[in-house]
Parts: sequence; structure tokens; C-alpha cells
Amino acid sequence: MALIVQKYGGTSVADVERFRNVAQRVIKTKEQGNDLVVVVSAMAGETDRLLTLATEASSEPDDRELDVLLATGEQASSALLAIVLRSMGHPVKSYLGHQIKISTDSAYGKARITGVDAEKIFAELREGRIVVVAGFQGEDEAGNITTLGRGGSDTTAVAIAAALKADLCEIYTDVDGVFTTNPSICEHAHKINRISYEEMLEMASLGAKVLQTRSVEFAKKYGVTVHVRSSFHEGEGTIVCEEEVDMEQVVVSGVTYDMDQARIEIARVPDRPGIAATFFDAISEANILVDMIIQTSSLEEGLANIAFTISKADFPTSLKIAQSLAKELGAKEVIAEDEMAKISMVGVGMRSHSGVASKMFGTLAKEGINIKMISTSEIKISCVIDAKYTELAVRSLHDAFDLGKGNG
Amino acid sequence: MALIVQKYGGTSVADVERFRNVAQRVIKTKEQGNDLVVVVSAMAGETDRLLTLATEASSEPDDRELDVLLATGEQASSALLAIVLRSMGHPVKSYLGHQIKISTDSAYGKARITGVDAEKIFAELREGRIVVVAGFQGEDEAGNITTLGRGGSDTTAVAIAAALKADLCEIYTDVDGVFTTNPSICEHAHKINRISYEEMLEMASLGAKVLQTRSVEFAKKYGVTVHVRSSFHEGEGTIVCEEEVDMEQVVVSGVTYDMDQARIEIARVPDRPGIAATFFDAISEANILVDMIIQTSSLEEGLANIAFTISKADFPTSLKIAQSLAKELGAKEVIAEDEMAKISMVGVGMRSHSGVASKMFGTLAKEGINIKMISTSEIKISCVIDAKYTELAVRSLHDAFDLGKGNG
Repeated sequence: MALIVQKYGGTSVADVERFRNVAQRVIKTKEQGNDLVVVVSAMAGETDRLLTLATEASSEPDDRELDVLLATGEQASSALLAIVLRSMGHPVKSYLGHQIKISTDSAYGKARITGVDAEKIFAELREGRIVVVAGFQGEDEAGNITTLGRGGSDTTAVAIAAALKADLCEIYTDVDGVFTTNPSICEHAHKINRISYEEMLEMASLGAKVLQTRSVEFAKKYGVTVHVRSSFHEGEGTIVCEEEVDMEQVVVSGVTYDMDQARIEIARVPDRPGIAATFFDAISEANILVDMIIQTSSLEEGLANIAFTISKADFPTSLKIAQSLAKELGAKEVIAEDEMAKISMVGVGMRSHSGVASKMFGTLAKEGINIKMISTSEIKISCVIDAKYTELAVRSLHDAFDLGKGNG
Repeated sequence: MALIVQKYGGTSVADVERFRNVAQRVIKTKEQGNDLVVVVSAMAGETDRLLTLATEASSEPDDRELDVLLATGEQASSALLAIVLRSMGHPVKSYLGHQIKISTDSAYGKARITGVDAEKIFAELREGRIVVVAGFQGEDEAGNITTLGRGGSDTTAVAIAAALKADLCEIYTDVDGVFTTNPSICEHAHKINRISYEEMLEMASLGAKVLQTRSVEFAKKYGVTVHVRSSFHEGEGTIVCEEEVDMEQVVVSGVTYDMDQARIEIARVPDRPGIAATFFDAISEANILVDMIIQTSSLEEGLANIAFTISKADFPTSLKIAQSLAKELGAKEVIAEDEMAKISMVGVGMRSHSGVASKMFGTLAKEGINIKMISTSEIKISCVIDAKYTELAVRSLHDAFDLGKGNG
């Protein structure tokens, strides 16, 4: 007998018929003798419907009120799942964020969970009930309704699992798990059986959109084992957990890519302290998020190059700022490219294995792909390349690192 | 400067465009220097949409969970109205039932309000904000969400007005006010300018479905003046208030009718103590609500007649029970009629004016309408007649009592 938290996402609860499928899976887990807390998202399409209403009401809907509106989606789902479970003869109660004190800060639309009242949930479990919880929502100190951002129900599930010290947190979704790369561009892509939190964080933030990044941070912080799996069949998915000794055997876990990249380089600017600060102050004042930043000395004495990447949407504004500052600072040139991609290799094994970087660069070179920028972290190497080479780069890296064999 | 509670019903908030109309009215009231609390219902059709989902999920949805589901309708409306008001530049906050402690008992689907936290609302009003409240919902002692039944937002508005000791409670609806009778069957029907709580209660429970009965009881108990008016134009509606001396000048305020009536008579049953009890025990065990009950001595010595009315839906079951008990009790006959109507004259003036009953009976007799049953209260006389005479009865009574002249 275990204590399990399950989370079902939007496509798993697209209509009432799907709720019945979810209920059957919940009941099966319960009848295996487990205590069970089930977190649900809004029905597929519901959040978009509510957002449309909000933008009809105002082009810039008030943050606080938008959260009150959006929270109804998960509230309805939790009630419907409880109704279905009850009609199948199982004792159940649904709970909203404020009812089990999913406490958050007051950052409407992207609130962070600060606490969960485990005692209330334990009391229901002791009564033999299945507890259904509306995901995505919480309550701030003043009693206002808050929401956790897209994918926030993942974080709700992990936070509850952490508060209850649950044995397992299962995230049911419409994919089979986390893959070594996107199967739609690389036929050898392979489901990863076990992956560490750190790797998952790098994978998620780099575009493998399976779990909300914040939920992985939460799981890592509290040591919650997360099982990402499909709600449409019975197969095992991917276990996200503490790094294990075995994992280091696998040097690279996956190849991810992000095609929403643009690159600007301010070339040959007179090198003196503070030029980078001047420049990035201006960029951040325009509310633009910069990803990679590289500053290098130029070949010409006393000159430097500053290059950075931003998302394509921020490209025009960033370019304007760069051009104006380049003039001011006396830079010789501004190079701008807006069709870029970032390719990343992720793996905890990199910590103890050398040679990943050189193999990556060599593989790309062999395909004639020019590397425009490089950045590295402890468990990740990223290269910026021309976007048109994305698929080629992903496939050849995936093959070069033998990811098609699987790591399980 | 006054403190005003306004309530807007489903058709007033049928779509986002209508929310803008409501917002304009709210702002106008606010700009006249008033403090303002606005209670909203679910958007027209939303409650039915949610009920459909619930019945898809289960033929008998769990009461507690159904309330969680239905409460989302008013939650969404309150957020949308707040978004619109905010976008028009007005400080505003929406509140749900649990947030301003609209405390209720635990009768899901028909909960009764037991308290409202006025202090929280006052605090917002002092800050200069418009307070928008989700109608129809509350919270029981254990923190469960409850709903107040169809029309419950009326009661929310009146309860808040009572708690705040508001100067006025305006109920905006899709009719112009309370009429002397249904304008669609009597062209002389006239809007009533002022009506007492008692009369309104008799009118409402008899089928003039303008205000939830419970909201009128609440208004009466706490002396809240209610103004029922149209949300589609500016005209004055009907003021529901304490009985005033003037009102007694008007003997009869209105004629109401209810065509959902059936009548069963157990005739010539041996008269001994307890026969009525035996009979109505059996009826109430079958969960059937009996309206009028009349017991009379029969012309034959030692025999009695018992007659009662029920709604048509309860007719078949009631008839079976009546037939079985009639046999048991040795009654000579069971008379059953399922196409009946109840016509009622309502007016506080009846208290001090005699002759209303005889004029009513005489009017019906003149039209050749046979009276099957009569019941009276202090301010009401009801007659049961064949349903086919309903319109004729209403029109002739309306004329006989000169209601077409209006009482304002």
C-alpha cells in the first residue's frame, strides 16, 4: 500500500467520456490498496475559452480578476471527476486551492506555492476517501485566488506529493514520456526510462515541454519521484528522480532544440569596463529576456565583441537598441541574424566524462554546420546555428551519441 | 450619498457586450456619489450548460460536487464584470461567497444564508472600490461550497444589503417590475409601483416569478427595501417594502394563477379522529408536497370528505395512494381531476375590507366558472377551478377589481 498523487491534464479530461476513463484508472489504483490524491486540470479548450472571454472584456484584463476567472476551469473539472467517481460508488471529495490551503505568493498568473495543508488531506484519506484537487490554483495570504501559470497543475501535484511525503507522483499526459529528442524530426528518438531532476530541468527549459519547469524544481527540492506517463495506455513512462549512480554511465541523455532564436552581435566596440552593463541595462528596461551572452576580445587591440541571443519576437526592438547604443559606444558594426536555432546536449554524465563538447562540435563540423555561439553548463552544452540546419543537427547528434539505443 | 446593492441576473449578463451595459449603469450609480456592491448571476445559459455536464457525468450527480460545479458560473461572471469595470478605469474587486464569508447551512443546492461578513465589504468601500460579489453561492461551517437554489443571487443581494444596512437593494431583471397579473393573458395588466413584502410573498409563491421567495422573506425579516426593475431601460420598477398605510387603500394588489394543479377528493369516508393524519402520512412518505387541504363533513351523517391539491407531476402517485387508502378506510368514492388551476387574489387591504371573497365568487359565477375548492389567508383568497377557464377568470377578476387603473 502506497500513497500516490496522480495528475491528469487537459486532453485526459477533454470531455465527460474521458473523465470516465480517468475514473477507471483512479479506481484501479485505489483498489490495489493505495491511498490516492488526484489533481485535475481544466478540460481541454476551457482555459482558452475563458481567456477569450477575458480579452473580449478587456484588451488588458486585470491580473487578479483573470485568475478568479481562470480558476473556474479546474474547479469544474474537479467537481466533474468527483461526480463520476461518486456515481461509480467510490467515496470522494473535491477540494479547491483555498480549501486545502494551497498557499501562494501574490504573483497573479504565475504564483509560487509556499505551503499545502497536508492535515486536511490526510483526514480525508483516513476516512477512506479519494481526494480530488483542482490544480493550477491557490490562495495568497490575503485570501485572493491565484493561479500558477500554464502547466501549473503539474506543480500542484508535486507540491501536494511533497507535503504528504507521497511515495509517488504520477503525471498523466498525452505523450508516452520524455524522449531523447523530438520523435517527429528524428525517427530514432527513444523514450528515456529514468532521468535526473537536473537533466529534466535542462530538457524542459530548452523546449521539451512535458512538465512545467517549476514542478521539476519543486520535485528536486523535496525529493519527489515523478512518473510522467500516458493517460491513453498502460505502458511505463519516464521516471524523474534523484541522480543515480547508473545514470552517469549514460553520458548524454537527450538532444533538445529551440528554433525561436535570434542573435545580435555588436562587433569591435572599444573595450572598457561597464560596456556590457550599459548595454544590457537598456535591453532589460525594454523588458526583453536575453538568453545567451558572450563577450570576447576582438583581434584588434582594445576592442571587444558582445553577442547575445533573444527570442524572435524581441528581435526588432533589440536590434534598434543595439544599433543606437553601438553608435553611442563607437562600435564598428552590428551583426543581426533572426533565423537561428539553439541545439543542446543534456546529460549528468558530462560531469565525469570529457570529450562531449569536442564530439558535438566535430559532428556538426562534419555536416558542414557552422557554430555561431557556444555556451556550457555542468550538464549541458548548447550551440547556436542557422535554423535551417536544425533537423540535420539533431539527427546527426542523436546518432553520434548513440541515443537511439535507449538508456533503460 | 447612499449605500446601494445592485443585482444583475442572467439575461443582463448574457454576453460580454451586456457586461459593458451593466458596467455603465454601475458606474453611473457610483458617479452619483453612491457606495456600491454589485451581485451577479451566471451568464444566461451557463447554469444549464453546467447542469448538462453534470448529468452527462452521472444521472444523479452528488449534491456537494454539483454545488462546486455550479458555483463556477457566478465566479466567472463576477470576474468578468470586474475586468470590464477595471478596464473602464474604476477601482473594483470581485469576491466569492467564501471570501466575504457568506455563511450558510449545509443544505447543498438550497442552502440558507446564516451570515455575511460586512466588515470586509466595508473595508473595500472605504478604499473607494466597487465591490462585485458572485451571487448564488456561500460556504458552510466546514468550508464546503454551497449554492442557494435557482434565483439564489436575489437572496445574496438582499442578505448583503441587510448585513450592510444598505439604503436600497436594486434587483435588475428582464421584466419591468411586478404586475397586477400576467400581461400576456390580460392586456390591462399594470405594473405595481409599491407592494408589501407579504403581498410579494403571496404573489411569488403563487407563480409571479420575479424574485426568489426566500429573498423576499429575507428582505421582510431585515426590513430591506427592494427595487425590482428592468436592466434594459431606465424606468422605475416595483418597490417591495414594509406595508404602508396607503397600501390599504388598495384592497387587491394582484391576481395570480398556477395551472400546474391537480385535485383528488376522497369522498364519504367514515369520520373518526386521525383519518386525515393516516392519509397525509402516506402522501408525505412518498415525498409529495400537498398544497391545499380541505376536510368537510359529508351530508350523510358520520361521513367526511377530504380533498387536496398537488402538482400534476405528483398526480399519478397520489392517486394510487388515495385509492389504496380509500379502500382501507372504507371511503365510498375517489374523485380525481388533473387539469385544474388555482386563481388567487392578493392584497393587504383585505385585512380591513370585507367583501373581497364574495365579489370574487360572484365574478367567477357570472362567467359560469365552477369553484371546486377555496382557501383563504389574511391577505389572499384562492379558488381552484377547471384549468380551461384560467385566462377568462384572470381577466374578469382583474377587471372586476379595477386593477387596470394601477395603484401608483
